[in-house]
Amino acid sequence: MWTAALVVIGDEILSGRTQDKNVAQVATWLNEQGIRLAEVRVVPDDSAAIGEAVNALRAAHDYVFTTGGIGPTHDDITVDAIAAAFAVPVVVHPQARAILEDYYRDRPGGLNDARLRMARVPEGAELIVNATSGAPGVKMENVYILAGVPNIAASMLEALSGKLEGGRPVVSVTVGARAAESEVADLLRETEEAHPGVAIGSYPFFRDGKHGSNFVIRSEDGVLARVTGDDLALRLRAAGYEPVEGGI
Amino acid sequence: MWTAALVVIGDEILSGRTQDKNVAQVATWLNEQGIRLAEVRVVPDDSAAIGEAVNALRAAHDYVFTTGGIGPTHDDITVDAIAAAFAVPVVVHPQARAILEDYYRDRPGGLNDARLRMARVPEGAELIVNATSGAPGVKMENVYILAGVPNIAASMLEALSGKLEGGRPVVSVTVGARAAESEVADLLRETEEAHPGVAIGSYPFFRDGKHGSNFVIRSEDGVLARVTGDDLALRLRAAGYEPVEGGI
Repeated sequence: MWTAALVVIGDEILSGRTQDKNVAQVATWLNEQGIRLAEVRVVPDDSAAIGEAVNALRAAHDYVFTTGGIGPTHDDITVDAIAAAFAVPVVVHPQARAILEDYYRDRPGGLNDARLRMARVPEGAELIVNATSGAPGVKMENVYILAGVPNIAASMLEALSGKLEGGRPVVSVTVGARAAESEVADLLRETEEAHPGVAIGSYPFFRDGKHGSNFVIRSEDGVLARVTGDDLALRLRAAGYEPVEGGI
Repeated sequence: MWTAALVVIGDEILSGRTQDKNVAQVATWLNEQGIRLAEVRVVPDDSAAIGEAVNALRAAHDYVFTTGGIGPTHDDITVDAIAAAFAVPVVVHPQARAILEDYYRDRPGGLNDARLRMARVPEGAELIVNATSGAPGVKMENVYILAGVPNIAASMLEALSGKLEGGRPVVSVTVGARAAESEVADLLRETEEAHPGVAIGSYPFFRDGKHGSNFVIRSEDGVLARVTGDDLALRLRAAGYEPVEGGI
């Protein structure tokens, strides 16, 4: 089982100003790589808080991802904080500088000092290609430093696709029913117990004036997940509900 | 300075299936109470992971909030995990039982065993009113255990409004400009340095084919935040940009 943690960096998330989108997209991408997102921490634009989270998580997981704080302004301190966490200096990466020189050659203002900040990396780091906006992400040992803007983070994840060692992706099978989850709680628990190796989550909703639930069966064994889904559907039908494969 | 942490509990967030909405709403509500959200952790439906996060954070912050895992099904383990973290047994709270008896009296299925699970609390806990769906939240010392469904969590926050001791709310002033943040990075840094006690965040966007940025000045001193906003607007104008009070 390969695991990863994500550190979301940014005062704007903790103030409620900005709705995070990176947890869901990193989680989905990791699952495709056969890696399980085991923990997320959201920390402020504070060097000590970033360093503490990164150091705790890089020791506990195969991979750590960070989002946010790698732009050109004074509040972008992620690279400095992670260099400090690794106890290495910050250096200008020659290839990153070349990428930025090329990117800003014909743009207003050119490669000014602020933009050149985006070529700074912890000593020993490698680059992650950013096909969207030039300035690269940074890989420092098992820590992957991504942009906070969701479409730029997505671009960096795309560049990493298929390059990280993982296991089997977790397969999800969803069965829905117009049942309040509290009416079928025993049935759910019994179904999970009958199929060791699966986890069943229960997600109620209230929609179009009706209560209902989606039951999500998750397993690294895709056949087992599907068999359990079929079993759950039969049990729901026997209890008088109409199961909906794929969820409602 | 009063601080809080939030523990978001749920496999569905870490799998990417569900987009979290609670970080932003808890953050916004806390700010209205004069409490700063200092850290968030997202953990799976795992008793040890929940307990470890809650114990680390309740020692470090004035308040801890949790969302998720307090429903009627087998995957709802938050109360048990937090009782274990406090090293106390789980008990049925008489008032919670009475609330549930009342709520389910005329509903199909009545108060079955699964629903009665929602009256279980760590020994010594108090209840948090849930005006939306009956089953209460739980307060255990400085830990506030809320539902995961966002509108139910909102209802519990509403019941807590004005009841937690806090300081002054942080005031945000936003100034926007059709400027790439990398063109005005020096100006931003200089403005922040000229006004000790404020933090300025820079949030670029690309919209309607044009680049721009919103600059958010945050301070517990509302006058200082507004004065800094005015100063930033003047500096942007002097540099040839048209500042937009309130942001773009």
